[in-house]
Amino acid sequence: MPDQHEPVREYPTALGAASLDTITLLGQDLADDVMGQVGFGELAFWLASQRRPSKGETRVFEAVLAALADHGFTPTAIVTRLTYLSAPDSVQGALAAGLLGGGSRFLGVTEDCGRFLHERLPDQLPMDDAGWDEIALRVVREQREAKRFVPGLGHHVHKDGDPRTRRLYAIAREEDLVGPHLELFAAIGRVHPQVLGRTLPLNGAGVCGAALADLGLPMELLRGFALLARTAGLIGQLAEELRHPVGNDIFLSVDLHNRPVDPDPYRPS
Amino acid sequence: MPDQHEPVREYPTALGAASLDTITLLGQDLADDVMGQVGFGELAFWLASQRRPSKGETRVFEAVLAALADHGFTPTAIVTRLTYLSAPDSVQGALAAGLLGGGSRFLGVTEDCGRFLHERLPDQLPMDDAGWDEIALRVVREQREAKRFVPGLGHHVHKDGDPRTRRLYAIAREEDLVGPHLELFAAIGRVHPQVLGRTLPLNGAGVCGAALADLGLPMELLRGFALLARTAGLIGQLAEELRHPVGNDIFLSVDLHNRPVDPDPYRPS
Amino acid sequence: MPDQHEPVREYPTALGAASLDTITLLGQDLADDVMGQVGFGELAFWLASQRRPSKGETRVFEAVLAALADHGFTPTAIVTRLTYLSAPDSVQGALAAGLLGGGSRFLGVTEDCGRFLHERLPDQLPMDDAGWDEIALRVVREQREAKRFVPGLGHHVHKDGDPRTRRLYAIAREEDLVGPHLELFAAIGRVHPQVLGRTLPLNGAGVCGAALADLGLPMELLRGFALLARTAGLIGQLAEELRHPVGNDIFLSVDLHNRPVDPDPYRPS
Amino acid sequence: MPDQHEPVREYPTALGAASLDTITLLGQDLADDVMGQVGFGELAFWLASQRRPSKGETRVFEAVLAALADHGFTPTAIVTRLTYLSAPDSVQGALAAGLLGGGSRFLGVTEDCGRFLHERLPDQLPMDDAGWDEIALRVVREQREAKRFVPGLGHHVHKDGDPRTRRLYAIAREEDLVGPHLELFAAIGRVHPQVLGRTLPLNGAGVCGAALADLGLPMELLRGFALLARTAGLIGQLAEELRHPVGNDIFLSVDLHNRPVDPDPYRPS
Repeated sequence: MPDQHEPVREYPTALGAASLDTITLLGQDLADDVMGQVGFGELAFWLASQRRPSKGETRVFEAVLAALADHGFTPTAIVTRLTYLSAPDSVQGALAAGLLGGGSRFLGVTEDCGRFLHERLPDQLPMDDAGWDEIALRVVREQREAKRFVPGLGHHVHKDGDPRTRRLYAIAREEDLVGPHLELFAAIGRVHPQVLGRTLPLNGAGVCGAALADLGLPMELLRGFALLARTAGLIGQLAEELRHPVGNDIFLSVDLHNRPVDPDPYRPS
Repeated sequence: MPDQHEPVREYPTALGAASLDTITLLGQDLADDVMGQVGFGELAFWLASQRRPSKGETRVFEAVLAALADHGFTPTAIVTRLTYLSAPDSVQGALAAGLLGGGSRFLGVTEDCGRFLHERLPDQLPMDDAGWDEIALRVVREQREAKRFVPGLGHHVHKDGDPRTRRLYAIAREEDLVGPHLELFAAIGRVHPQVLGRTLPLNGAGVCGAALADLGLPMELLRGFALLARTAGLIGQLAEELRHPVGNDIFLSVDLHNRPVDPDPYRPS
Repeated sequence: MPDQHEPVREYPTALGAASLDTITLLGQDLADDVMGQVGFGELAFWLASQRRPSKGETRVFEAVLAALADHGFTPTAIVTRLTYLSAPDSVQGALAAGLLGGGSRFLGVTEDCGRFLHERLPDQLPMDDAGWDEIALRVVREQREAKRFVPGLGHHVHKDGDPRTRRLYAIAREEDLVGPHLELFAAIGRVHPQVLGRTLPLNGAGVCGAALADLGLPMELLRGFALLARTAGLIGQLAEELRHPVGNDIFLSVDLHNRPVDPDPYRPS
Repeated sequence: MPDQHEPVREYPTALGAASLDTITLLGQDLADDVMGQVGFGELAFWLASQRRPSKGETRVFEAVLAALADHGFTPTAIVTRLTYLSAPDSVQGALAAGLLGGGSRFLGVTEDCGRFLHERLPDQLPMDDAGWDEIALRVVREQREAKRFVPGLGHHVHKDGDPRTRRLYAIAREEDLVGPHLELFAAIGRVHPQVLGRTLPLNGAGVCGAALADLGLPMELLRGFALLARTAGLIGQLAEELRHPVGNDIFLSVDLHNRPVDPDPYRPS
């Protein structure tokens, strides 16, 4: 039985607030200081970190979002199209269903790579490539001995190099924003053939994780930025589905080729 | 039984595609022509419309996204925080759950207002305010006679005017992008007191719908842009919850004040 | 600024409650009166209506759930499998994504049919088939004149009759639970050829809606029961996917047959 | 470029299939052999395991589902009510949002406990309580040394014993279905005070995991059964919200007590 004089709880927030005349967002006047002044990528960064990014940080951040926005008929894109086919009354449901595929396997590389690098940064950062290479060698060897992959290394299509990786490093250099995560990732790119005996590309999802980590964004939310980028991509998928639908063809391509088989009773191992 | 020589289906798309060396997005080279060159708001517009917006269109579009990104402790924000509390293993689940509240009642005004205005545009557009006022008068009277609200009219807090509305009109005028939807909405703002007998503000969600419609974006996806904006807002909510959590307090404020009552058997009317 | 002595809100509920020694559910002792005594279908009915169903009602209700549980490779089943492929860390995400396809087009027929019949029941119910036929004739004619379909009429596979329909009527008759919704639906089945000039089957999704409405369940939640049934079906899909995966093949069958096309700039109509 | 004679893929399934005259589910005639003959809990078990459970197995399974169906105003229940408040057009969205809270923290105990026990079963099962106690002692000591909790041990309300635990053991004994997982869990209940120095109850979520594991259901899907149970519970929450709404009060209790604070710029650790 609650005490009738229990102190009323309060819920602090630095995000949106409203009074009769003004709306505040992140301590700014939404109408006058944010609308028309702050780009959407810049705002997303600001909302996540509660600090306004510099122009250079915004450019790197938006390059990452562009790299992650759409990869064609990924499972998430197919899911959004099929959900819209099945429930056209709910755009929010189609987008949400697509985002739910943003887990460990497809979108997870960005987060995994950012965290992986972060956990392996030394207290004392190296001053030159040789120093980074030394750390990278140790990191790759440890993974190999533990029979684990290095997140961000390898790509099933771009075997000779992922064009997003090259480009994101160039942008980060232009903006003077190559930090320790990108340094270590580059060093892994240089030294891993010595350990693994073959050359793998640094993939785009991985370099995005490294860049987001260097931007000082919360490690727990790296996947969130991939999901933000993907939301824009999924709206593109929906827009295309509305005008040039393929969802029903995809559905039929599966349904018409179902092959009924006998039940296979499950036995626990 | 499928024919073994059934022609293989193809799924056309103008969105992402990849070959060994390049990644294409919307017919552009992703790495060289998009990353570092195209802002995130601009890219989201481009993905949804398959045409690159002008600088002015991008500015209006991003102002709309800013206006819709976060409104404090809305149901969607509370849902994202509670879902994260309950399933911290799944950032995608917390974001998706929040977006699922983006339906007819809270986020729907943007879409409803855009569609409402769109369906009431005359074939021959008026040349001046007097002409728009005439149409607006008819529109408001029809709604009143049908005992229906005008979407976008009224706000429970900003009773004397929504600051987002004033500001979005100013930006659209600066960019020379006040089109017929914004014109009709403004006219509704001028004439409705004659019909309804009191003055209501044009609200921010409504003006955003009018602006998106004037940008020529697909009417079926207006809600989608509100959801995109909200995704950035929900990431902000998650980021704040990670550092200054309130989710458990919200949960307990409900759970500890539950009042067990007798079942009330349902009888269909 | 909240008043520190604002009365504490309370949230009444007849559902679950707990004290040190007991857990109550719907006013029953969960452990002693529900567990081991109440079947799961019976409990789901009870939770939704806050009244305990009879044995006959439970049998009809569970027959409906069985009819709706799984239909093979529906969009919802494909979505659950693809989401699990993409995010195997989140079973809840895979199930939720599948349920999001339970909207107006696929699972909606059950709800649409139940509501359609409910809204057309006369105040004074007929005493015999001839009376029901008269109402049904009027109903079908009205739909035809309005160029609208009759929900629940027609099936793309079971053109000569849906076996679920025949069976559900038999069960409802055995349990003496053929109420006005099932009566009107049967009459529509008898008379529609007179109006439409061809004979269509009463489909299984529709008859399920009629039966749920006759059970006195809330009209707003008819879709919810279809979703409950489908949750069991989607768990079956996941269980099969775990042992005999097809998700990756489905993904590749789409991705490998993508055909890059030029962007098609959107122009609003 | 796909080969035009690429063999058409097939997708095997033992779940639903349909022809002109019949619908098959799990190799049974859906209409005649399932509808009206198979209860919903029984069917859910069958779909997940592809084998028909015995009457006793069904009773234990349904007792588990009853134990997990609803726990009052949990985060998932609040989320479903708030999502419905915000998007009443989408019942599927409200249910899906609620299920997304079924992750590691709240619903996860069932899965965690089942897996925990499963991984610690010896190859040679003990013949008596003394044998189980010996294993349990080792298990609890290992957890303590690793400073990890034993899943399923402890409850914040039922400190003197969870009534669901006692009852589920009684039902399992009545049906002769106490297997090794329930045995080991019971032994943990007997011996843990020796190691931990205080007596904790075996909680209901944990015993449900042990019982599901003893039923031979797939370990990867234990959480799925909790979600199935919860789907019925969430439909109950929605049904109550429709007639006795509290969602808006919950929303206002948070929104009206927000306290705007200054942004707190994030600095990575």
